[in-house]
Amino acid sequence: MADSRFFKKFKDFSVAEIAEISGCEFSDAVDSAFVLDDVAPLNTAKENHLSFLDNVKYKEDFLSTKAGACFISPAMEEFAPADTICLITPTPYKSYALAAQAFYPEKYSPANAIIAETAAIDKTADIGASVTIGHHVTIGRNVEIGEHTRIESNTVIEDNVKIGSYCRIGSNVTLSHALVADYVRLYPGVRVGQDGFGFAISPTGHVKVPQLGRVILEDHVEIGANTTIDRGAGPDTVIGQGTWIDNLVQIGHNVRIGRGCVIVAQVGISGSAKIEDYVAIGGQVGIAGHITVGMGARIGAQAGVISDVPGGQEYLGSPAFPKSQFFRQVAALNRLIKKKKHD
Amino acid sequence: MADSRFFKKFKDFSVAEIAEISGCEFSDAVDSAFVLDDVAPLNTAKENHLSFLDNVKYKEDFLSTKAGACFISPAMEEFAPADTICLITPTPYKSYALAAQAFYPEKYSPANAIIAETAAIDKTADIGASVTIGHHVTIGRNVEIGEHTRIESNTVIEDNVKIGSYCRIGSNVTLSHALVADYVRLYPGVRVGQDGFGFAISPTGHVKVPQLGRVILEDHVEIGANTTIDRGAGPDTVIGQGTWIDNLVQIGHNVRIGRGCVIVAQVGISGSAKIEDYVAIGGQVGIAGHITVGMGARIGAQAGVISDVPGGQEYLGSPAFPKSQFFRQVAALNRLIKKKKHD
Amino acid sequence: MADSRFFKKFKDFSVAEIAEISGCEFSDAVDSAFVLDDVAPLNTAKENHLSFLDNVKYKEDFLSTKAGACFISPAMEEFAPADTICLITPTPYKSYALAAQAFYPEKYSPANAIIAETAAIDKTADIGASVTIGHHVTIGRNVEIGEHTRIESNTVIEDNVKIGSYCRIGSNVTLSHALVADYVRLYPGVRVGQDGFGFAISPTGHVKVPQLGRVILEDHVEIGANTTIDRGAGPDTVIGQGTWIDNLVQIGHNVRIGRGCVIVAQVGISGSAKIEDYVAIGGQVGIAGHITVGMGARIGAQAGVISDVPGGQEYLGSPAFPKSQFFRQVAALNRLIKKKKHD
Repeated sequence: MADSRFFKKFKDFSVAEIAEISGCEFSDAVDSAFVLDDVAPLNTAKENHLSFLDNVKYKEDFLSTKAGACFISPAMEEFAPADTICLITPTPYKSYALAAQAFYPEKYSPANAIIAETAAIDKTADIGASVTIGHHVTIGRNVEIGEHTRIESNTVIEDNVKIGSYCRIGSNVTLSHALVADYVRLYPGVRVGQDGFGFAISPTGHVKVPQLGRVILEDHVEIGANTTIDRGAGPDTVIGQGTWIDNLVQIGHNVRIGRGCVIVAQVGISGSAKIEDYVAIGGQVGIAGHITVGMGARIGAQAGVISDVPGGQEYLGSPAFPKSQFFRQVAALNRLIKKKKHD
Repeated sequence: MADSRFFKKFKDFSVAEIAEISGCEFSDAVDSAFVLDDVAPLNTAKENHLSFLDNVKYKEDFLSTKAGACFISPAMEEFAPADTICLITPTPYKSYALAAQAFYPEKYSPANAIIAETAAIDKTADIGASVTIGHHVTIGRNVEIGEHTRIESNTVIEDNVKIGSYCRIGSNVTLSHALVADYVRLYPGVRVGQDGFGFAISPTGHVKVPQLGRVILEDHVEIGANTTIDRGAGPDTVIGQGTWIDNLVQIGHNVRIGRGCVIVAQVGISGSAKIEDYVAIGGQVGIAGHITVGMGARIGAQAGVISDVPGGQEYLGSPAFPKSQFFRQVAALNRLIKKKKHD
Repeated sequence: MADSRFFKKFKDFSVAEIAEISGCEFSDAVDSAFVLDDVAPLNTAKENHLSFLDNVKYKEDFLSTKAGACFISPAMEEFAPADTICLITPTPYKSYALAAQAFYPEKYSPANAIIAETAAIDKTADIGASVTIGHHVTIGRNVEIGEHTRIESNTVIEDNVKIGSYCRIGSNVTLSHALVADYVRLYPGVRVGQDGFGFAISPTGHVKVPQLGRVILEDHVEIGANTTIDRGAGPDTVIGQGTWIDNLVQIGHNVRIGRGCVIVAQVGISGSAKIEDYVAIGGQVGIAGHITVGMGARIGAQAGVISDVPGGQEYLGSPAFPKSQFFRQVAALNRLIKKKKHD
């Protein structure tokens, strides 16, 4: 199904192989040697394709799918079309992810590592083995880049930045004042390490506060396209291990984000906020400065968090309240206008 | 009025010519040979300038304008200053647009097409006739670019991307995994085609879902500066013919936008949402994933649409409600606090 | 404290010198020759470090700080640890800013001005003395750049742009149709001068309105990373002297912003809005088109301003109301749902 101009399939897999890769079960009646030759969405899958049902919104597509096999949760098995092999798992989306990775492994090979002649690399930079550097890249003084890392075209790495191994820095990125660990991925247009918005307001002209911290990106961090992460003002700005940040997000100076967080597009996190581990933040949320969002909190899209919130709960609204309170507010307001209508 | 360093005027026009170009009427008393030598806003226009009144907020400026001629709706004719020729049209802004295009046609000429020597163009790329390529552009393997298209400086076009004819790709753009039709315009800093934010959350580290779709930009699409459009996860991300998107917008994976939509700055559209034809979305709106916004719907600025909404109506608020209901909510709330004050 | 790889300290200072630089007072009992060798946050400062207490949230850190000296307001003196010298000032953050600038002056020296060989500079460009131009920069026809200005790597300056002296234009920036005064700073990824979102909607295809104005950036303006500023449609887009704009902000065509404003990240200001002097706008705020925000107004984060608002006050909410009214609305709503619960 995938456009072969952009995506190279590795090989076909049997149902048994896929079950092994993805940690799924299937019933004894299934032909475990059945060949699956690609992945595809439910509504376009054909008889040798592998699909998945994760969001119940797509149940109709499942009922009529032509897919040869499908990852589903146990409760969905009874709805499966007769010709679709059920691969049973409590986490169909994760199983699909693992299977799709098997069909389409990242195509990069260190054997192809090339440093473009058009790149401007300072002679003091320390470039590891099997590093790829694209066209028109600019690399400053004393930069260190670990092995197998790729720096894509037209990106700028400023002086003294340190990047670990197996990272992928997209094109048109700017990276300064940063220490980047291993397996980090920056998408195109990311800006990391510029001065934070730090100044003392004064009627005769704002007075800039020198921004003397850095940005620390721990292992396996991903930063989406055109996202901006300011360096610390004195402390560092830190993004914890395995945290994934979407596109067009703003992270202010001194922000500390824990491990395994998920931050959706267009979120803004103000200076010196602390986001603990495993927090999930929906799109367009704003987090005020100098506050703490507790471990495992979930902040719904467009919410505005203006004070410390404990972890483990879901919040909505601007200002943000616990989810149930927010929906009671909305309901109360709608009752009020109905009442008025009837008065 | 326009700064001649940046804008080259083509020539002067008579009132008759302008009326012809813009589809307007004028009364018999008017000197149709009167020469207009430029366009200008109402409040700075001089006696040989052409202006327009579209937004009633600027009626005061119209009453005192020195403009030689002005596009206005029929209802405004009676307020015109004595020395201003009235060009009558039901759509003054559109008429002004057509006239201003006549005065200031886009200056690009295929005769000036140049491929900069500093561009890094893979030898397998297929570059059409009269294509312009700016400095430090990077063009990957098997890229196809149609005739008369311009690629501006420091932009990166990744492998296998196909771009049609008469497109204009601004500077510092990144474009990958995309099929771009004709007359498409990408503004500076646009990011098209990167992986969507697709992964299965897992306590031992998020599992990336390979993003195997593309971005399809149909004819006459425009994408504003620093906007990000992720490629599909399996299906494609599609922007329909003639849809215009403003700056700093986020379009998630699998989003399908119809024809002739208008999407204002800083909007976020979550993955797999469907926006039907002729939808207008105000600034900073958020659209949740997997929902449908019906044909011709208008979503007011900062609204948050969290479920399917039928077309042909206007919505406001977060969560979004029909416009009249939203304003009744606001009014009810203000009555409530007044009542409290008086208790 | 600052990482010496990224930040070069100028020298040590005595308490007397720091008081002089920062306009502070200290008691007679203080050893004015005591040497301060760096700045640091309260909680990590050591005995020869200089710190500050500005936000009362950090009072606990002040009580236990090891800092050798600290900028504080007069009211805090009684809480100072015994070994910390108090530098008394009504504006501790401003005093800290001045002191930190003394320790870490911007390292740039005109003696190091270099024009990279990889830059593509049109031969008609007029480049002043002591200008620095980074790698892979593209500079168009008739561009003027004043003395001591720096243009960082991979940036594009389009034809006829004029930039003043002592400016710093970050990397991966696009700048067109603009007149830039002195001491202006653009951060990485800024887009200035592209067409505004101007067109007449039409069922047969939107009709583009030629955007014939410019962008005017007055002295000492700062524009944050990945922010977009569209040029005027006829009038200019103007950012007044000393106004500072954060990251990912959208400024529409014809917007006029006064002097000394502060605009936080992800704000969107719609076309033709007027922001008077000394306005402060919080993160993610939206300002509607064609309205005026009065001098010294403060707009709280995430607010939506949809009509003219007088200056000197604070506004919150979407739609925005005066701050006290907004909080009464929130309180009324919460009373309402409590009442319902008890019914």
